[in-house]
Formats: sequence, structure tokens, C-alpha cells
Amino acid sequence: MESDPGFVAALEEAKQGYAEGGVPIGAALVSKDGKILGRGHNMRVQKGSATLHAEMSALENSGRLPASAYEGATMYTTLSPCDMCTGACILYKVKRVVIGENKSFMGGEEYLKNRGKELVVLNNEECKQLMEKFMKEKPELW
Amino acid sequence: MESDPGFVAALEEAKQGYAEGGVPIGAALVSKDGKILGRGHNMRVQKGSATLHAEMSALENSGRLPASAYEGATMYTTLSPCDMCTGACILYKVKRVVIGENKSFMGGEEYLKNRGKELVVLNNEECKQLMEKFMKEKPELW
Repeated sequence: MESDPGFVAALEEAKQGYAEGGVPIGAALVSKDGKILGRGHNMRVQKGSATLHAEMSALENSGRLPASAYEGATMYTTLSPCDMCTGACILYKVKRVVIGENKSFMGGEEYLKNRGKELVVLNNEECKQLMEKFMKEKPELW
Repeated sequence: MESDPGFVAALEEAKQGYAEGGVPIGAALVSKDGKILGRGHNMRVQKGSATLHAEMSALENSGRLPASAYEGATMYTTLSPCDMCTGACILYKVKRVVIGENKSFMGGEEYLKNRGKELVVLNNEECKQLMEKFMKEKPELW
């Protein structure tokens, strides 16, 4: 599953965020037939944004889609989703959330399960190392 | 409470959204000492946005604030918040959510209560009429 195009895209986005001096979290929204609908990364630093976390950026970059586009979709994210991004996954009725890691931060995983979402935690080393590096280098941003 | 500057601002925002041909939902984030930190309205139509619901616009327009700014804050919104906006209120640890009405749509009110938020539902006629008019005129957008 770490070779899924959606996860590869999410990880690329996280690295892009790091390269921009931002919070290195990436995400990609993938339709049930495997098409990447949108991808993005956390823009808190780059845009001074309070809402553009990685998953929100991926949703926003997917544009305004009909409800059917989200059916059976998967949200790939490099880090366990916060309460807001958890709620966004529920609002858009994605079927599955694939999470790079949840050691740096544990978000709304229990609630996602309670609301019927499939959850996969990859425990991916690259995601963890990226976050660890960032938190060490820029603790004031985390 | 319907005369609170925060609620007045939220209702103005909803009307502004209607005037722009958009979804007439408005919100305002107010600090514990009564300062409007940010206000906004649903931008789904205007910006083709999947994430800028009213509450998200209010948070976004508040800018990136220190955690202390949200302490004791109130989110005023003209309509019961969806799962995403519910999650955003939880993420930012607002203390209270004041809701214009929940007849047109009932969102994550139970979950907000479960997560310790104070909830006030005003059952405001103007909010209801605005939504009813919109849903009748533009059912394809709702």
C-alpha cells in the first residue's frame, strides 16, 4: 500500500511542504477507480492559513465535485488527521483513510472508525522522519 | 443573544452570501472579550470551494492566531455546523457555538456537546427564511 499512487503523491506533497519551509504533511484524495482527484500539503506557514491542512488542501484542490465522486474514495495522508480533517473526511463520505504514521500526532482515528471509515495506518518511516526533523528544526511551528 | 455583535455579523455574512448568489450561511468567530476575530460566509459557489463553509471562512479570515486567541471564544453561525465545521470548532477549542437555526440542516451538535462545547440554538426566523428561500430558488446548489 506504500506503493499506491495516492500514498506516493501524499508523501511527495509532504516533502514539497518541507522544501517550502512549511509543515511537512501531505495528502491525496483518490477515487474508487484509482484516479487522483486532488493532492495538496499543509499551507499553514506558506499562506498563513488556519484551515489548509494537508487533507483540506487535497479536498480544495479536487474542486467542487458531485457527491458521487467521493463515493468509495480514499484519503491518503502522511499524518493522522486532526479533528477538522477527520470531520472533512466524514462530511465528504470517503470510504477509507490511509495514514502514513500516527506517532508524531494521533488525531481522530477512533471517531473515524465510529463513523464507519476503514482505517489503515502504515507506520511509514519516511513520514515519521520528516515530521521528527521538522519538529526538531522548527518547534515554534508545531 | 440575537443582538450579540457576533450573531449580527454572522447574519450579515449570510445575507451577503445570498446577494452574491451563493449559499446563504454566515459565521463569526468572537474572542472571550467580545472582539470579532474573523467573519465570513460560505464560498462554495463563489470560489468553487469544497472547504470554505461559513465557519471555515470565519476561521480563515481570522488568520493564523496563537492558541490563546481561541480560548473562551464563541463561533456564531447561522446554520447548524456540518461535520467538517464541527471538527474545526473542536480543533480550535472554541468554548461555545451559537447556532442561528437547525431546522434546514442538523449538523454535529451532539458531537460538539460530547466534546464539551456549550451549545446555543437561537431558532432564528431570519436565518430559517433565508435558507428556505435559497433552497426553493436554487435546489441544485443545496
